[in-house]
Amino acid sequence: MKKYIEVYEYYKSLIIKGQYQSGDKMPSIRKACEVLSVSKTTVQNAYFELQADGYIISQPQSGYYVTYSAPRKTQSAEPEKVEDKIKYDLKSGDADSESFDLKLWQRYIKSALRQKERMLSYGCAEGEEDLRQVLSHYIRDKRNVETSPDRIIVGAGVQALLSILCVLTKDRKTVSFPTESFVQGISLFESSGYKVRTRYKDADIIYVSPSHMTSYGDVMPIKRRLELVKHSKEIGSLIIEDDFDSDFLYQSKPTPSLYALAGGENVIYMGSFSNVLIPGIRISYMVLTQELAIKFDKMKDCFAQTASKTEQIALCGYIRDGHIASQTRKIRRHYTAKAKQMFGEIKSQIPSAKVRLSENGLAIKLEAEYSGDGSEFEKNGVSVYIYNIDKGVVEMALIPSAVESADIEKAVAVIKATLGAG
Amino acid sequence: MKKYIEVYEYYKSLIIKGQYQSGDKMPSIRKACEVLSVSKTTVQNAYFELQADGYIISQPQSGYYVTYSAPRKTQSAEPEKVEDKIKYDLKSGDADSESFDLKLWQRYIKSALRQKERMLSYGCAEGEEDLRQVLSHYIRDKRNVETSPDRIIVGAGVQALLSILCVLTKDRKTVSFPTESFVQGISLFESSGYKVRTRYKDADIIYVSPSHMTSYGDVMPIKRRLELVKHSKEIGSLIIEDDFDSDFLYQSKPTPSLYALAGGENVIYMGSFSNVLIPGIRISYMVLTQELAIKFDKMKDCFAQTASKTEQIALCGYIRDGHIASQTRKIRRHYTAKAKQMFGEIKSQIPSAKVRLSENGLAIKLEAEYSGDGSEFEKNGVSVYIYNIDKGVVEMALIPSAVESADIEKAVAVIKATLGAG
Repeated sequence: MKKYIEVYEYYKSLIIKGQYQSGDKMPSIRKACEVLSVSKTTVQNAYFELQADGYIISQPQSGYYVTYSAPRKTQSAEPEKVEDKIKYDLKSGDADSESFDLKLWQRYIKSALRQKERMLSYGCAEGEEDLRQVLSHYIRDKRNVETSPDRIIVGAGVQALLSILCVLTKDRKTVSFPTESFVQGISLFESSGYKVRTRYKDADIIYVSPSHMTSYGDVMPIKRRLELVKHSKEIGSLIIEDDFDSDFLYQSKPTPSLYALAGGENVIYMGSFSNVLIPGIRISYMVLTQELAIKFDKMKDCFAQTASKTEQIALCGYIRDGHIASQTRKIRRHYTAKAKQMFGEIKSQIPSAKVRLSENGLAIKLEAEYSGDGSEFEKNGVSVYIYNIDKGVVEMALIPSAVESADIEKAVAVIKATLGAG
Repeated sequence: MKKYIEVYEYYKSLIIKGQYQSGDKMPSIRKACEVLSVSKTTVQNAYFELQADGYIISQPQSGYYVTYSAPRKTQSAEPEKVEDKIKYDLKSGDADSESFDLKLWQRYIKSALRQKERMLSYGCAEGEEDLRQVLSHYIRDKRNVETSPDRIIVGAGVQALLSILCVLTKDRKTVSFPTESFVQGISLFESSGYKVRTRYKDADIIYVSPSHMTSYGDVMPIKRRLELVKHSKEIGSLIIEDDFDSDFLYQSKPTPSLYALAGGENVIYMGSFSNVLIPGIRISYMVLTQELAIKFDKMKDCFAQTASKTEQIALCGYIRDGHIASQTRKIRRHYTAKAKQMFGEIKSQIPSAKVRLSENGLAIKLEAEYSGDGSEFEKNGVSVYIYNIDKGVVEMALIPSAVESADIEKAVAVIKATLGAG
C-alpha cells in the first residue's frame, strides 16, 4: 500500500474514533513527518486526501483542522429517522461491498479523463458515438436485439429516457403500465398529459418489464409475450420493453425479448447498467424505432444528454474489453448464491413458512403467519417488501443483494423474531 | 512522466500516424520490453491503457492487435460533414485546452471512487446532501442567494431540472420565454402541455436568463429586474432565473439576482457548472421555492437523480477546498483576455467593421458589409452566430472560448476573407 495512504488511514481512524474531535488542530506537517518518520510529501498527500474526503480543512496561515463531526447519514436536526435504524436492508435492491471491482472501474475513468479533447465539448444529445457502437454489439449478443447504433439513445437512468420518449410520442394519448408501482414512469407520463391506465391492452403505448414482472421476480412467459406482440401489431401500438433485470434470469436461457419477437418493429427496447455494475453508476439506453429515431434526429437541438461523459467513455472501454460479460457472470453467481443462502436459512429457522425463490433467482417470496400490521419489521431493523397482510398471514418479498453474506443468518433471525412476536 | 505513459504515447503515435495499421499485430510484451529497455509491468500497463482507449485489443492466446482505423469523429458512411471542416469554432461556446486543470479534477474523482459505501446505493433524488450543503454556501457567497440546502435540487443539466419543474408546477398553464432560441426549454414545456409564449409578462411562469440576455451577452439592467420582480409578485407568477453565465460578468459588480431582489420568494434560481469547469462535466442546480420544495419532498419517489454520483462527490470536495473560486477567476481572465484579443485583431484586420465587446466580456458583436447569404463562413472553416443579414450588412456574434489563443489571428483572417469575398 502506498505510504501516503497508510498515513491517511491512520489519521482517518483517529478522527472517526473521536480521538481528534471536530475543531481540533491537526499536527503540523513538519510534526507529522517527525512523529511518523515519513517525508513531507507523504504527509501533504495524506492531508490532501483527508481534506478532499471532508475530514479536515485547511485554514490558510493557521493549519489543518478536523471538520468531521457526525456520520454523513444524519445531518438534519430531525429526530433519528427510521431509515438509520435499518440494519438489514432486504428491500432496496442496493448492492453489497463484494459485488463490484471499483478499482478496475477507476482505471477506465482515469483513462477517460485523459482524453482531454473530448471533455472540452458538450456531449452529443444521443450519447457518445463509440459507446453506442459498443452497445449495439452488446445488446445483440445479450438479447438478440439487432439495431444500428444510430437508433440507440443513452441517458442517466430510465426516467431521463422516458422523458425523451414523452416528447417524441406526443401524438399518442394513452399509456398502460402493468401495475401502479412504477411511480417514476407513471408520474412522468401523467404530467406530460397522457391518460395512464393499468393492464389496458388497447393503449397507444404499453410499458412492460417482461424480465421482472413482479416484486418477487416473475418473468413474462413466452406465450404472453407473443400475444402482446401480436395484438400490438394489430392495433399499431408502441411497446416499451424495459429489460433491466434480464441479466439475472435464473434457470434456462432467457426468454426472447419482445423486440426480437416483434422483428424489431414497434418495440422500444430499454436497458440499464445500474444493476450489473453498481447503483452509483447510472447509465441506461434505449433503442428507438426507425421512425422515432428519425424524429429524434430532426429535433436533436431540443434534447440534452444527461449521462456523464466521463462515465460513458469509461463504460465503452469497460464493455469493449470484455469486463461486462465477466462482471455479469460474477454478480449473477453472487446474488443467486445469497438468495439460495437466505432460502436455506429461512427453511432452517422458520420451517412453518412457505418460501420460494423468485424466477430470476434474486429474491425470495415468503408467506407466514403474522398478526402484526407490518410496522414491527422496520422497528426491529429489517426492511422488507410487504405486499399483502390478510387473515393473519403476511406475504413479503426479500431481496438480499444489499445484505452482506455474513449477515444473512442474523437478518433471518430478526424476521423470525418479528413474525413470532407479531 | 511515468514510464508506462511514455511507452503508451510512443505506441499511440505510431498507431495514429498509420505505421501500425488496423489489424496489425503489436509486438509481444517480451519483445517490447527488449526493444524499449523497460520492465514487463511497464509494457503491460501501457498496453492496458492502449486497450482501454480503443487503440488495440487483446486476442487471448494470440496477442495484441491494432483496432484503430479512423478518427472517431467520422464513423458513418455519409459524405464528410461540414462540421468536420470547421477549423475555428466561434459559435458553440465550448472550452479550449487551457481552461481547466483536469488532473486536479481527477484527484477528486479518484477520492470520490474510494468512498465505496456511497457507490453501493442509488443517489438521493434531490442530489447528494454534502454537495447541497456546500452549494448553499457557494450561491450565498456568489450571488446573495440565501437558502437552506433542503431546497436545492441537483441535476445533470438545466433541462433535467426543468423536467422536474414541469411536474411540480402542473397547476400553472402558460410559460413565457424571452426569445425563441432556447429550444430545449420550449419543447419541454410545450410537450408537457403548457402554452408557450414570448415576452409575455402575464404568464404563470416566466423564464429568464438575466445574466445572458442575448447571444452577444447583454445583461438585464437593474431597473428591468425590479419591474419584473414587482409585477410577478402582483400577479403571483413564478420566475425561473437561469443564472448560468453570471460568473463572467464583465465590469462592475454583478447586478443583484432576481432571487435576492424578490427576497427569495416566487423565484426559482438555477445555475450550472459546465461553463465554469468544462463542458464535459454537466452538473446544474436549482433552488425551489419553499412551497415547491415541500411538494418535491412529498413526491420524492417519482423522481430520480440524473447527475453522476461520483461527479457530485468530487464537485463537493472541489468546491469545499476553494478550487471553484480560483477556477472561476482563472477562466474569467482567460476568456475575457481572448475576447479582447479577438476584438483587437478585428479592429486591426477589418477596420471598416463595427465591433464591440459584449457586456459579459465573453463575446464580440460584429457588423460589417457583406453580400453573401451566410453559408460561406462554414465553407471556409469558421462557424459564427449570424443573427441578421439585411441590405448588404451582416450582424454576427463571435464567442472565442473554443479557439486557442494562438489561432485567433488566423480565425479573424478567415472572417475577413469571407466578408471581403461575399
